[in-house]
Amino acid sequence: MKKFAIATLGIATLLLAANASAQVKPEDQIRYRQAAYSFASWNMGKIKANLDGGYNADQVKAAANAIAAVANSGLGALFGPGTDKAIGAQKTSVKPELFQNGAEVAKLSGNFTKAANDLAAAAATGDAATVKTAFGETGKTCKACHDQFKARN
Amino acid sequence: MKKFAIATLGIATLLLAANASAQVKPEDQIRYRQAAYSFASWNMGKIKANLDGGYNADQVKAAANAIAAVANSGLGALFGPGTDKAIGAQKTSVKPELFQNGAEVAKLSGNFTKAANDLAAAAATGDAATVKTAFGETGKTCKACHDQFKARN
Repeated sequence: MKKFAIATLGIATLLLAANASAQVKPEDQIRYRQAAYSFASWNMGKIKANLDGGYNADQVKAAANAIAAVANSGLGALFGPGTDKAIGAQKTSVKPELFQNGAEVAKLSGNFTKAANDLAAAAATGDAATVKTAFGETGKTCKACHDQFKARN
Repeated sequence: MKKFAIATLGIATLLLAANASAQVKPEDQIRYRQAAYSFASWNMGKIKANLDGGYNADQVKAAANAIAAVANSGLGALFGPGTDKAIGAQKTSVKPELFQNGAEVAKLSGNFTKAANDLAAAAATGDAATVKTAFGETGKTCKACHDQFKARN
């Protein structure tokens, strides 16, 4: 049941996202998705730095909210037709297999969204140990998708 | 008093951000700030598309939360020393004047953060007319900074 709920969430995210994809050119979809993941990566790095060094609860909360906002932003809209390979100078590290495995992508996407929302909730508590666990879980969901569908890591 | 409060918010944002800047190389600061603004721009575009066409309250809420998360993420940390001009292949469209006008930048940054938070609150109501007004105000705060401190628009 939980697995079904997560898969449904992922598919719902993709469907929700599909509305907005029509207006965005394929090369801009690639550019925007890279921006989204890069922005998330910066915020993951900030949380790691806080866990490794002096813990600033406000900074961690803002960073976790940013990651959750990325996860909830409907990234599926940025993987539209024609975005499976480079377009002119706009490169991509996505594997074409991503576009042939909708159910798996929906599952991984749902896992990321759930983990990111859990991380934001953990950050809101201000407790570093709680954040550390949730941060690790979120990192696993990033890696799970990269391992399957990202060509360069 | 309001002006003071906004300026203080901006400065607090910059100070908060300063903690995290030490770990990020200047060229990565430029890359991450471009990613942050690009991600915000995509989400602004989604809200505009919703206001122009069929209004999807959930999509607008997610997009507005994303813009607010960018505004609250401590972007000041990404304008550290050495990021006032291109570094190798990493270009930037920032004007060097930004680095010599801390008080003005803090004011503009505070205006953006306030407008983005107001936009997220407006989106939470689900009312398109309320969102339209808040969206316009947010766009003005983007433009105000671009007009002064962005070389290419």
